Amino acid sequence: MTAPTDATHDPALRSWVSSANLPGCDFPLQNLPLGRFRPHGDGGQLAPWRGGIAIGDQVLDLALARQQCPWPDDVQPLLDLLGQGDLAAFLASGRPAWRRLRAALSAALAEGSDQGPFLELCLHPLAAVEMALPLAPRDYTDFYAGIHHAVTVGTLMRPDNPLLPNYKWVPIGYHGRASSVGLGGGVRRPRGQIKSSAEAPPTYAPCRRLDYELELGLWVGVGNALGEPVPMDQAEDHLYGVSLLNDWSARDMQAWEYQPLGPFLAKSFATSVSPWLVSLDALAPFRRPLQRPADDPQPLPYLDSEFNRSLGAIDITLEVWLQTAAMRQAGQPPVRLSQSNALDAYWTPAQLLAHHTSNGCNLAPGDLLGTGTLSGPAAGQGGSLLELSLGGKQAIALPGGQTRTFLEDGDTVILRGYCQAPGAVRIGLGEVAGTVLPAG
Amino acid sequence: MTAPTDATHDPALRSWVSSANLPGCDFPLQNLPLGRFRPHGDGGQLAPWRGGIAIGDQVLDLALARQQCPWPDDVQPLLDLLGQGDLAAFLASGRPAWRRLRAALSAALAEGSDQGPFLELCLHPLAAVEMALPLAPRDYTDFYAGIHHAVTVGTLMRPDNPLLPNYKWVPIGYHGRASSVGLGGGVRRPRGQIKSSAEAPPTYAPCRRLDYELELGLWVGVGNALGEPVPMDQAEDHLYGVSLLNDWSARDMQAWEYQPLGPFLAKSFATSVSPWLVSLDALAPFRRPLQRPADDPQPLPYLDSEFNRSLGAIDITLEVWLQTAAMRQAGQPPVRLSQSNALDAYWTPAQLLAHHTSNGCNLAPGDLLGTGTLSGPAAGQGGSLLELSLGGKQAIALPGGQTRTFLEDGDTVILRGYCQAPGAVRIGLGEVAGTVLPAG
Repeated sequence: MTAPTDATHDPALRSWVSSANLPGCDFPLQNLPLGRFRPHGDGGQLAPWRGGIAIGDQVLDLALARQQCPWPDDVQPLLDLLGQGDLAAFLASGRPAWRRLRAALSAALAEGSDQGPFLELCLHPLAAVEMALPLAPRDYTDFYAGIHHAVTVGTLMRPDNPLLPNYKWVPIGYHGRASSVGLGGGVRRPRGQIKSSAEAPPTYAPCRRLDYELELGLWVGVGNALGEPVPMDQAEDHLYGVSLLNDWSARDMQAWEYQPLGPFLAKSFATSVSPWLVSLDALAPFRRPLQRPADDPQPLPYLDSEFNRSLGAIDITLEVWLQTAAMRQAGQPPVRLSQSNALDAYWTPAQLLAHHTSNGCNLAPGDLLGTGTLSGPAAGQGGSLLELSLGGKQAIALPGGQTRTFLEDGDTVILRGYCQAPGAVRIGLGEVAGTVLPAG
Repeated sequence: MTAPTDATHDPALRSWVSSANLPGCDFPLQNLPLGRFRPHGDGGQLAPWRGGIAIGDQVLDLALARQQCPWPDDVQPLLDLLGQGDLAAFLASGRPAWRRLRAALSAALAEGSDQGPFLELCLHPLAAVEMALPLAPRDYTDFYAGIHHAVTVGTLMRPDNPLLPNYKWVPIGYHGRASSVGLGGGVRRPRGQIKSSAEAPPTYAPCRRLDYELELGLWVGVGNALGEPVPMDQAEDHLYGVSLLNDWSARDMQAWEYQPLGPFLAKSFATSVSPWLVSLDALAPFRRPLQRPADDPQPLPYLDSEFNRSLGAIDITLEVWLQTAAMRQAGQPPVRLSQSNALDAYWTPAQLLAHHTSNGCNLAPGDLLGTGTLSGPAAGQGGSLLELSLGGKQAIALPGGQTRTFLEDGDTVILRGYCQAPGAVRIGLGEVAGTVLPAG
């Protein structure tokens, strides 16, 4: 269990990296997210990927930091793993190790630290580094925990029966494609089978209803052995942290292919995550009780725990922003399409992980779980264009007179996330941005 | 494209490994399947996994073989990869390299070979080695290409509408769980949510309708880049070969969880494959035209090629055998439950691979594709107990008076496969066996 806050969350803490103390900064001293990077353009030769910590507008190079100054004996081996870019090995070392490193980095980056003068030599501007996927997940699972999304999409497909009978009992999920998980950038519009009318045969053509889905990514830290389910009260010990996740979706391909075995090619062309893993430890000040209406079925015992009821959910504001090619050319900034919250999930991260292993399925360090689309309850809070445009029937007006039902070539979709609470320093998840490239 | 036979298929070829020349042998000189093994019990210390070739009742140790005798210059680096157990790197080297090694091994293991006296020192009895998964697939995809299975299961669920409208257009598939792919052995009965009646709430309990599914596993050799679909006429160049695959299935969990996103925990507790990869090159004598009724829709152009029409399918006899704990105790051998054929698939291996990449999805060496359950058209040819027992309504009689609707603890399920054709030497796929362990 992750819960209570400690000295690393102290809102009075400030960093000697001055940009980390600015209001609205995603990466203050209380965050310390983990990623994998290399400096831009090392004279033609590519530097190896290495672990880094985002602080303000800088990244602390953990390979250099290991060498530049002394560290406590129990922290050095962790920095060795991260310096080599082996984030999976670090994640496998478990929460006590994660907390030990967090405490050491918090102290080292705080104002007045003796290590400051040495670590100043280990910073790269974020703008001057290239980020890698923090880990290449071997397995990627996508859930369907956003109940407002499930109701809205269900209503579009089954107006009389939007939410299937299993929804409030089973954290519905499906296996996704791990190989096409990336950081965004250019995302090529897929081709696929599209059935435009009941009469005409399907055609193989570029997707015409390309969409995004606003999700939270959950990253497995410690795995479990095959055949050994993880009980609810240990589930969070297996979760390292979170990122943003865009589950790009080809709606026309999905509608034709998905029965009876679920989404396949409509999703597997790309999934984009943000590059910084924000630990559950950093999110401790933003934990909230699980919200479940009293007349809903209560979770079965294998999905229930006292901790989950009192602090299982996390308050993270989530946003989708769009910038079309025309907006970019006109110098117009991205426009916000929607805002929702991780509290809009019907199931908590711990419940998703416990359910996933409840049949004995084995998870491994670096496995990725998507929450499913997190839409708010209101009409303008849909986490996908499918919802915002009511299945393509109602176009969305954009600044400058453009409209959208689904994505067009050149559109850039940006997901952002952050946490705010009284008495806590704002924590950001950063962002993930992807631009639609024309079909090949 | 794989097609025509060469000297390695000559039915007159015999091996100096005498057991390889016995009738009914799975692994004659014309087969040469690839696996990963280590000798049993090397004095407490575990030997590293290494590549091997099955020949008769022996395995040729490729790490030793590399050292024991001279090889052609272009074969040595391939043996180095395989000797180190890096089958993924060998698969990535492509069909010309695969064929080069096959030709060299065929010559070296043939009667009269100069290398024979050296290679005799590199054999281990199959009974004295431990096998590993040949490769740990990063991604595992399961298709639904067995049309007789789709019709029978569809009839059980939707008597008036067994085959959905997309079936004859789209090679239906879904992502499976890669981490729980293994070689069989003990398979623990999963627990999961089961909804026993419309009125009662679901319970979390051991699966009561545990089943197997008889499939062929297709192993990707050469991958493709994200965003670059593989055209049909190159699809087989990306496929190394085949194994048997048992897609263990928890039918009661599946029925409750699968809508709307497909199977998840009902499958992810275990998938078992046979340990020997039989190359498409070895299967050349058993290629057959694609069988598709003339009044069925013909494949869309991206799923069609001249080669696929003339030789796209493969004639592989597939069998399911069962031995219960009581049969084992009574000394009774396994009994055959069903026989079908890879020709019962509606889509060819090349079509499955081309479809999978048709949206730009990237495949990697060692990725695993299951064909879906391959059932024959007749009533007793179902590739699962769900089919053979008509959804559990009609028990199957076993020797000794036992009956089965679904699997009981202690049952051992064995899948076998082999190819026979006039003028060709019989080739076997070996077997995969799994025994049901009680729920934990």
